[in-house]
Amino acid sequence: MRSLVFRQLFDTAGSSTYTYLLADRPGGDAVLVDPVVEQVDRDLKLVEDLGLKLKYVVNTHCHADHVTGSGLIKRKLPGVRSVIAKDSGAKADVHVAHGDRVEFGDAFLEVRATPGHTEGCLSYVCDNMVFTGDALLVRGCGRTDFQGGSAETLYDSVHAQIFTLPDDTVVYPAHDYKGHRSSTVGEEKRLNPRLSKSKAEFVEIMGNLGLPYPKKIDEALPLNLVCGIQEE
Amino acid sequence: MRSLVFRQLFDTAGSSTYTYLLADRPGGDAVLVDPVVEQVDRDLKLVEDLGLKLKYVVNTHCHADHVTGSGLIKRKLPGVRSVIAKDSGAKADVHVAHGDRVEFGDAFLEVRATPGHTEGCLSYVCDNMVFTGDALLVRGCGRTDFQGGSAETLYDSVHAQIFTLPDDTVVYPAHDYKGHRSSTVGEEKRLNPRLSKSKAEFVEIMGNLGLPYPKKIDEALPLNLVCGIQEE
Repeated sequence: MRSLVFRQLFDTAGSSTYTYLLADRPGGDAVLVDPVVEQVDRDLKLVEDLGLKLKYVVNTHCHADHVTGSGLIKRKLPGVRSVIAKDSGAKADVHVAHGDRVEFGDAFLEVRATPGHTEGCLSYVCDNMVFTGDALLVRGCGRTDFQGGSAETLYDSVHAQIFTLPDDTVVYPAHDYKGHRSSTVGEEKRLNPRLSKSKAEFVEIMGNLGLPYPKKIDEALPLNLVCGIQEE
Repeated sequence: MRSLVFRQLFDTAGSSTYTYLLADRPGGDAVLVDPVVEQVDRDLKLVEDLGLKLKYVVNTHCHADHVTGSGLIKRKLPGVRSVIAKDSGAKADVHVAHGDRVEFGDAFLEVRATPGHTEGCLSYVCDNMVFTGDALLVRGCGRTDFQGGSAETLYDSVHAQIFTLPDDTVVYPAHDYKGHRSSTVGEEKRLNPRLSKSKAEFVEIMGNLGLPYPKKIDEALPLNLVCGIQEE
């Protein structure tokens, strides 16, 4: 996939979410991973600027910290289809599960189930990149105390589905708060302060984070369960 | 340069500056382009995590919107040398000019003079990437009303030194305020709302921006002229 088009975009409106635009070739078929509702105009402008045909808006999971752009994009570009895990419980045009492929032109995302942050978390592998959502962050990971989260499950997911990828696979997370853009599988296996530990230590760490109640969860979750902006 | 290590880092402390870490190979010799003083600990942690040997801190120009991390890095890692344009008027260990190379291991940055935002603005070309500082931003460019800036000069610089690179050269700017991470030379030639215009139109646009006085210029400039943190 040498001609793959790839762009990373950052939500400057407050959620620090990364959105990813991929296309199989210049002017080809595209997917947007984890769009944010406040950034839909920016994202669609870039799709248009690059002359791409947007096929799917793909979510790594049902987010609790921002509203997905999926519904608004579907309204603005009829024909685009939304994708999320069957296990997320969220409404979408296409429900995927472990082992499925999301095809765009000659390229595809390979779906890997990586539950633990939520029950329906997916990672998507494309070429030498993995889009890990909140399962694996740069030197961190998503919390496990909401939405059916489980530290044990997250540990197993990351070790079985992400840390088994080649060490030079580039890790693209759903968020970063310190200005990091990416990492690699090899780096996170060696340097992640949580997931490089034993499972027992990881569970202990995750049980003692003492995090506040997620700020936007009561607004974001009901909307994200119906694709962001409810279709009429 | 297939084994090149490359990382883009973002200043979340307010200046929206991009800092770039490059090394000739995993565990090899490295340069940091445009480090920000508030992010020095993060940047040096990454250098250490990746087992790199930092040779140079390289500035695209004498910044007016943030304090460079060059001086603080030199204090923390004696032996690292600072690099800036001779024409910047700023103090540094190495003054470079158009056509020079900044070598790190088997790789190098090719120095291109791209004045116009300031008199001493440089762009650095490495492999298929160009680090453009404030000369060329994603769908924009730096202002030309301070530090010896000139819209005519900037237009000529970008057209002669950046737009002549292959269209698929990746443009990595010193800032972005909308969450874009990169662009390409081909895209900016076609889509940049200022620099895709005629020179006369560009000069007209730049003369009518009506921008406020730069917030941090009175603090940042005197410090950046002596490498950020004055050496004792």
